[in-house]
Amino acid sequence: MNTFEPTPNTTLKRLPERGSFDRVTVNAILDEGFICHVGFAVDGQPFVIPTSYARIGDRLFIHGSAASRMLRSLSKGIPVCVTVTLIDALVLARSAFHHSINYRSVVILGTATPVEDLRDKMAALRAFTEHVVPGRWSQVREPTEQELRATTVLSLPLAEVSAKIRTGPPKDDAEDYAIPVWAGELPLRLVAGMPIADTNATAAQPVPEYILRYDRRTKNDRKT
Amino acid sequence: MNTFEPTPNTTLKRLPERGSFDRVTVNAILDEGFICHVGFAVDGQPFVIPTSYARIGDRLFIHGSAASRMLRSLSKGIPVCVTVTLIDALVLARSAFHHSINYRSVVILGTATPVEDLRDKMAALRAFTEHVVPGRWSQVREPTEQELRATTVLSLPLAEVSAKIRTGPPKDDAEDYAIPVWAGELPLRLVAGMPIADTNATAAQPVPEYILRYDRRTKNDRKT
Repeated sequence: MNTFEPTPNTTLKRLPERGSFDRVTVNAILDEGFICHVGFAVDGQPFVIPTSYARIGDRLFIHGSAASRMLRSLSKGIPVCVTVTLIDALVLARSAFHHSINYRSVVILGTATPVEDLRDKMAALRAFTEHVVPGRWSQVREPTEQELRATTVLSLPLAEVSAKIRTGPPKDDAEDYAIPVWAGELPLRLVAGMPIADTNATAAQPVPEYILRYDRRTKNDRKT
Repeated sequence: MNTFEPTPNTTLKRLPERGSFDRVTVNAILDEGFICHVGFAVDGQPFVIPTSYARIGDRLFIHGSAASRMLRSLSKGIPVCVTVTLIDALVLARSAFHHSINYRSVVILGTATPVEDLRDKMAALRAFTEHVVPGRWSQVREPTEQELRATTVLSLPLAEVSAKIRTGPPKDDAEDYAIPVWAGELPLRLVAGMPIADTNATAAQPVPEYILRYDRRTKNDRKT
């Protein structure tokens, strides 16, 4: 299937032209981002916690310490919402009212399932590492069985999913275009700075190419 | 008060050294960011929606169309969680297990209240504009009364609040420091690119200085 099935909870009531259920669009956003915000409610109180994630096919994975309150809550199978947001530009209009932000976001609804099999856990941890820093996994020490057991990995199906996107210039009221003020877009991008070597290193090591060239937009480790 | 009162819901169970209830720390994170993720539950289903925000003193404001499902739900006074996350660096360890992310986040719990008074709404809209683009408000057309009425503004007290911060190098297991791989931090930062003028402009306008020099880290429009 190339599109996700809309549901009442993923259908935009306003500005439906900003919505998308296209799988390629959704996957591109999930693959460029690496931080999601996980929403869940405990005793009626919602919590929103930032964490990293990885995608393998049509499943999203999050992970953390087995002692994490968030992961223990979600492991019980309560409803969850995972949102990934990429900020692309500030949109400066002639009126305060029409200022906006260009962004791409994905909202995933569902329930998460703990990954128990150690090989599946290992695959997920590999995906986390390679999703955040493509090229890193083969250079570092793999998780031990003890580390795998200390890590909770949750899997969330990409089933009830929608993307929301705003692009392009400001949309001012017709009579406001004559206001003599600069208007347009200010692109924003998460960029890498100079790598900072760990001063606790026992010997100097060359900075890997995948660190020197780090760029989320040109990540091409996964195309599907 | 210079610190927020911890509550069971804002007290870190794990890694408590990463937590902070310091008001200056919290405000600095809120003032550097401009996108929050708003969590709320409707019929047991949590939703996490990205939106912009502004802070005035000890209150956080969010806004949007009066037709917004999120704002209509929150206006009823249901519990909400607002989370602001700043990503500072990837943390590359010698073991896959100890990879991490340096970040600063703030979690705000509470219930939101609609701002009804039109002057208060105007003050909040000014704060939104100046929070995202300091210097912009005085250059653009102010909201009309009709625009104010079409905008829902919600106010959330900064009362049940905590910050969480990770900084510094990777923390590897002692025996892993000898692994011959580069380790350290890769700083990440949201930076502005070249401004894109709106091609629908009726006449060319100079790009304002506050756009040319846009930098969230050096925002100094509010110190408290």
